[in-house]
Amino acid sequence: MKKEMRDMLGRTRLLEVDEAIRILAEALPACRPSAEEIPLSAALHRITAAEITAPEDLPPFPRATMDGYAVVAGDTFGAGESSPCWLTVSGEVMMGSAPEGRVNSGSCWKIPTGGVLPAGADAVVMLEKTIPVSDTMIEVIQAVGCGTDIIQPGEDVAAGATVVPANHRLRPQDLALLAAVGINSVRVRRKPRVAILSTGDELVPADQTPAPGQIRDINSIALTALAAELGAEVSSCGIVDDRDEAFLSALSAAAAANDLVLFSGGSSVGTRDPGERALKRLGPPGILVHGVKLKPGKPVLIAIAEQNGLTPIFGLPGHPVSAMVCFELFVRPTLAHLAGAPLLPRPSLPARLSENINSAPGRRDVVRVRLSNEDDGWHAIPIHGRSGAISTLSRACGWFFIDEAAQGVAAGEMVDVILL
Amino acid sequence: MKKEMRDMLGRTRLLEVDEAIRILAEALPACRPSAEEIPLSAALHRITAAEITAPEDLPPFPRATMDGYAVVAGDTFGAGESSPCWLTVSGEVMMGSAPEGRVNSGSCWKIPTGGVLPAGADAVVMLEKTIPVSDTMIEVIQAVGCGTDIIQPGEDVAAGATVVPANHRLRPQDLALLAAVGINSVRVRRKPRVAILSTGDELVPADQTPAPGQIRDINSIALTALAAELGAEVSSCGIVDDRDEAFLSALSAAAAANDLVLFSGGSSVGTRDPGERALKRLGPPGILVHGVKLKPGKPVLIAIAEQNGLTPIFGLPGHPVSAMVCFELFVRPTLAHLAGAPLLPRPSLPARLSENINSAPGRRDVVRVRLSNEDDGWHAIPIHGRSGAISTLSRACGWFFIDEAAQGVAAGEMVDVILL
Repeated sequence: MKKEMRDMLGRTRLLEVDEAIRILAEALPACRPSAEEIPLSAALHRITAAEITAPEDLPPFPRATMDGYAVVAGDTFGAGESSPCWLTVSGEVMMGSAPEGRVNSGSCWKIPTGGVLPAGADAVVMLEKTIPVSDTMIEVIQAVGCGTDIIQPGEDVAAGATVVPANHRLRPQDLALLAAVGINSVRVRRKPRVAILSTGDELVPADQTPAPGQIRDINSIALTALAAELGAEVSSCGIVDDRDEAFLSALSAAAAANDLVLFSGGSSVGTRDPGERALKRLGPPGILVHGVKLKPGKPVLIAIAEQNGLTPIFGLPGHPVSAMVCFELFVRPTLAHLAGAPLLPRPSLPARLSENINSAPGRRDVVRVRLSNEDDGWHAIPIHGRSGAISTLSRACGWFFIDEAAQGVAAGEMVDVILL
Repeated sequence: MKKEMRDMLGRTRLLEVDEAIRILAEALPACRPSAEEIPLSAALHRITAAEITAPEDLPPFPRATMDGYAVVAGDTFGAGESSPCWLTVSGEVMMGSAPEGRVNSGSCWKIPTGGVLPAGADAVVMLEKTIPVSDTMIEVIQAVGCGTDIIQPGEDVAAGATVVPANHRLRPQDLALLAAVGINSVRVRRKPRVAILSTGDELVPADQTPAPGQIRDINSIALTALAAELGAEVSSCGIVDDRDEAFLSALSAAAAANDLVLFSGGSSVGTRDPGERALKRLGPPGILVHGVKLKPGKPVLIAIAEQNGLTPIFGLPGHPVSAMVCFELFVRPTLAHLAGAPLLPRPSLPARLSENINSAPGRRDVVRVRLSNEDDGWHAIPIHGRSGAISTLSRACGWFFIDEAAQGVAAGEMVDVILL
C-alpha cells in the first residue's frame, strides 16, 4: 500500500499530479460515510443513498388537462364547425372533489383543468371547441378521440416505478416529484464531516489582533468555506500545537470523529515536519503521497488512517494559494467521493493568454488570471504574485494549468481557464 | 407604466418572451432590498453592499518566503559555489515573535518561512544555497539581491487599498483575504425575502394525504427550492383561499412583508382569474405582463405593487413544468437583481438533437431533454410529456429553446442545452 518513495539521498520522490490523483482515487473506495433519513424539506442538493420508487400512481385519478367538457368521445365523432354535435350539460366537476354521478352518451359535464374525469367520460373537449346553446346544452364543433386532453392515472409516474435513482443529487424538480407521490422523507448520504486544523507558532485566530511577528490564521477560513461549498459539515479545530505528541493526539481525535481531515502548515520539507511524523505514527494505510510536481502546492501530504473507519487526511501547504490549489486538485474529488456525488467540474472557458508565461518542464504550474472580454473573445491576464499572497487569488477570476511537458505558454495561445 | 394590452375582443395580447423580459428589466431598478452587517463567518456567497478597503498592511511586517538566513544582501555580492562568502550566525528568528536585535554586515540570522525579517537584514538566502561550516558559521554559495525571498509590508495588500469591490459575490478566497486584513464583519445585501403562495381548491399540503379529487401542492416545494438555490429567504405561505377578498388580503400582506412574491395556480385565462383581479386592486405600477408567447408558461402574470416598498409579484401557471419555466425566465433574473448580484447563467452545452421537433412559429417553445454521451459528442433526446407531468422535468438533464421565428428543429441539428 505504501506509495511514498525516497530517492538515494533519503528525500521524498515527488509524484506527478496525475499520479497522485490516481493513487488517491485507488485508495478512496474503502472510505465512505453512511446514510441517514432526512425530511424532504431539508433534502435540496443532497445525494440519494438508494433508488426511490413511487408508492402510488401520479396522478391518482384521470384529470382534465384543459378547461372544457367531459364527454363520451364516441358522441363527438363526425362533429365539426358545420356539423356540430349537441350534448346536454348534466353536471359540473368541482376542483378538489370526486364527481358523483356519471356521464352518459348524449350528455357531458363541465370540467376545469385538473378536475377529476367523471365515470363514463373518456375525453375532454376544450372550451374553445364548444358553443353554449342554453344553460343545459352545448354544441361541440370538433371531434375528440378517446383520451383527448386527459392525463391518465399513473401517466406521470406509475406506482412502483423509479422516481429518482441512487447517488442522485436532488434538484428542485426532484423534490417536487417526490412530494407529488407522497414521499416526505428520503434516505441520503450523510454530509461528509470535515475537520480543519491549522498549525504554526505565528498564527492567531482570525478574529484576534496579532502581536508583532504573528499573523491571522486565514487558511482555516478559506478551507472551511471551500468545504462548506461542497456540502460538508465543517468542524473548525482552530490552531493546534504542532509538537509531536500534542499534534498526533489532535490529528487522531479529528480523524476518529470525522470523515476527512485537513491540516495546513507544518508539511513543508523544512527543518520540522510534524505532519509527516504524525501521519506515520497514525498507522496504515498511511502516507500515500508526500510532495507533488506542482507549483504552487508542492509539499502536499495525502494519507489515509484507520481511526474509527478509514479517514483521508490531507496536509496542505501553509501558504494560502498553495493550500487552495491542493484543495481543488485533491480534496475536492475526495469530498465528492465521500458525498457519493459525481464530481462536478468547475466551469471553465477558453481565453487568449495576454503574455508569455514560462514554466519548468516536469512540473504542473498553476497560473492565476483575471479575464477581460475583448472583441476577439476572452483574454486571460496573468496575476503575478507569491503563493503567500492571498490577494492574488481574490483578484483572480480563475486559473489555468501549464502541463508537465510544456516549458511555458506563449502570448496569444488559447488556455482553458477554470473559473473560481 | 401599464404595459398590459388587450385586443379588440378584450383579450390580453400575449407578449414575446424577450419583450416581457425587457419590460420587467426596465421596471426592476426601482426595487431593491437594503443592506445589513453580518459576521464574516456567515458571509460565504453573500454580495457586498459597498467596496471594502484594507484597514492595515498585509503582511504587517517583512517576512521570509523561504527557509534560510536573513542577510545583508551586499555581503553576498560575488558569492558563488567556487567563491562562497562566510557569515557568522548571530541569531535565529522564531515563528510568532518579533526578532530582537539586528543583523549587521558579516553576520546573519537563521529564519524560517514566514518569519519576521530582523532589522538590518534586507534579503534571505535560501537554506539550499548555504553550507554549514560550524554552529555559528555558514558559507553562502549564491549572491542575493536586496529584497530576495522577502515579502514586503503591504505587498499583498496595502492599507487603504480595495480588498473587494461592491456588488461582489464573496468566495472562499475573498473571505480569507478579508480575514487577513482584520475584517470580521461585512456589509452585504440582505437576502431577498420571497413569499410563496399556492391557490387551488384541489390542493392539500404536500405532507397530507389527499382525499379523492385532491392533489398535493408541489409547486410550493419546487419554487421554495428554486428560490433557496438563489440565496433567498423563503416564507412558505401555504395554500391560500383564492376568493377575491381573502386572496387580495393574503397577497397584500405577503407583498408588504417580502421583497418578492410568487403565487401559482389561478392565473390562467380560464373562467376564474383571482390573480389578475387582485393585482389590479393592489394598485400601481400594477400588471406589467399578462401572458407570453411561450410553451409551456403562457399564462404568466408579472406585476409590481407598492406595498411597503415596490414588490415584484409573479403569478405562475399551476402546472409545475410551466411554473418552473417561468421561474427560470422571469423570476431568476429578478432575484439576481434583488440580491444585487450579476445574473449567473446556468451552464449549457451543445448537443445534437435526436429527433425532429415541431414548433408553432411566433412562440418560444421549451423542449425538455435528457443527454447521452455518444462518439460524436452529446445527444439531446427530447422528453415528451404534458406540462402537468413533473416527472418529465425530473428525468430531464436540461432543456433548450426553439425561438419564435423557427417552425421546429430537425433531427441532427445542434441545440444549446441549458443544464438544470
